[in-house]
Amino acid sequence: MNSSFNKKIVAITAGDPEGIGPEIIEKSLEKLNPDCPVLVVGKREYFKKDLFNKVTCPEDIEKNGLYILEPEISEEDPSFSFVKEATGFALEGKISGIVTAPINKEKWIRSGNLYMGHTDYFIKTTGVKEWSMFFWSGDIKTALYTTHIPLKDVFSRLNTEDLVRFCRFVHSELKRLTKKDFTVFVSGLNPHAGEGGNIGMEEIEIISPAVELLKKEFVISGPHPPDTVFLKARSIPDSVVISLYHDQGLIAFKLLKVNSGVNVTLGLPFVRTSPDHGTAYDISGKGIADPGSMIESIKLAIKFASLT
Amino acid sequence: MNSSFNKKIVAITAGDPEGIGPEIIEKSLEKLNPDCPVLVVGKREYFKKDLFNKVTCPEDIEKNGLYILEPEISEEDPSFSFVKEATGFALEGKISGIVTAPINKEKWIRSGNLYMGHTDYFIKTTGVKEWSMFFWSGDIKTALYTTHIPLKDVFSRLNTEDLVRFCRFVHSELKRLTKKDFTVFVSGLNPHAGEGGNIGMEEIEIISPAVELLKKEFVISGPHPPDTVFLKARSIPDSVVISLYHDQGLIAFKLLKVNSGVNVTLGLPFVRTSPDHGTAYDISGKGIADPGSMIESIKLAIKFASLT
Repeated sequence: MNSSFNKKIVAITAGDPEGIGPEIIEKSLEKLNPDCPVLVVGKREYFKKDLFNKVTCPEDIEKNGLYILEPEISEEDPSFSFVKEATGFALEGKISGIVTAPINKEKWIRSGNLYMGHTDYFIKTTGVKEWSMFFWSGDIKTALYTTHIPLKDVFSRLNTEDLVRFCRFVHSELKRLTKKDFTVFVSGLNPHAGEGGNIGMEEIEIISPAVELLKKEFVISGPHPPDTVFLKARSIPDSVVISLYHDQGLIAFKLLKVNSGVNVTLGLPFVRTSPDHGTAYDISGKGIADPGSMIESIKLAIKFASLT
Repeated sequence: MNSSFNKKIVAITAGDPEGIGPEIIEKSLEKLNPDCPVLVVGKREYFKKDLFNKVTCPEDIEKNGLYILEPEISEEDPSFSFVKEATGFALEGKISGIVTAPINKEKWIRSGNLYMGHTDYFIKTTGVKEWSMFFWSGDIKTALYTTHIPLKDVFSRLNTEDLVRFCRFVHSELKRLTKKDFTVFVSGLNPHAGEGGNIGMEEIEIISPAVELLKKEFVISGPHPPDTVFLKARSIPDSVVISLYHDQGLIAFKLLKVNSGVNVTLGLPFVRTSPDHGTAYDISGKGIADPGSMIESIKLAIKFASLT
């Protein structure tokens, strides 16, 4: 066996074959020279070039390289079969991480499955109690305290106890995945972070007490004004912004990430990353899809897998 | 009288003399060669160089150039005297626009005046019914439907009638100031603009009806997902995003404007612009303040004044 062989296998699920998934996977793997085995879970016919060695199970892999595994497709949407197969391998410890190419959620629903998307499937299948949508780029990293809920429901979800638990969870997950102590910036909720109580009380009543309590445990500050917290965090290496609601984090992230944003799910028993874009049917099949976000997703999954 | 003389005078109030206001005014006016008279309202002693001709009233100005007018300072904070004086001239039609250098709001309050800042003073003094905080840069322009209120109060302020009136007002003010028909992008309120009602109903019940109604009057679209609307608008020249709350607009604006953001008050009977930063006491007096935002504020005020 090759001594440089790293048994930590990272899988990539092919996603919706009618979207840009297969194209960006192929482009990414042509550019990257991964120092671990990479296993695409999908169909060989989706790809133009012959980059992959075919295997029937991860145990067949004995050296670094590019592999493909073609799962049996049942009645369901094929992109769901790929994700199920990869998740099974991950839960059996046969692979260390999964990078997911974009799927079409409506196709999943139409084909009868009950999951709202990748993240929903991973959470329900693994049964984890705590998890977070996390967005990673060179410039900016943010975790979302609340995700896909109406903006007006954010207020009833915000309390000191849950915010303490969430910040602690994000810091500890980043430590586990990167072996680094991240500096945590907590955003406020109101304009100017409430301006001392003039523009809302959540900062004084809920957020500040959480930050004060956590200062004994790691480097944390806030609540910062939401419109400058990302500028502040951006200048500090290994820092993360805790965004209290979806758009607080994603308005900033999508403007700053410049084609290299990665969506990470924290809290799973395996590494999970994905590009932060969709199937892009409008440009699918034209050969013009930008693989930037997929390249970073693969690199980050390999990095996390090597450290955990 | 010089035939190129443009009687449209733009005033600049000196702001808090302990802040960076005078420094950035001086740096800006050294760089710019304005094609109109520019009248600084402040004290000559705040400035290092002798750039200005002293006048005692705007009527003394008979050709383009740089002027200074030193108002009498009463008991109040001097920066407030400058603003009062300039506003008086504007309301008498003696000047066409005011660029305001940063003030310290706490000093205003401590010295006994009841205004929360420049914009509050201008609105109350002019008695305008409709106005808007508007942020302008080369890349991105946005108007705030709500401003300095707690986030949870946004929901009770949002209704179709007011949103229609606000979008119409912003479009018409931009037409008046620039002579151009702006393309209007209306942001949604919820993640993914509500995703068809799955994540909040305000898009369906309130925002879409407003947009549909206005489509007969000018080019308008939305509600767009808040985390991508700025990316969409950015690629369209002469476009404006209607932000429904303070941080929706300002998270995006502050990340994208790159040192040249201008704060504009729409709806006043005179032009009003200002840099989008504060007194910056931490760097005041060091000579290192960046005049970028002040330069753009002066240029924009001159442009608007020339067209109105």
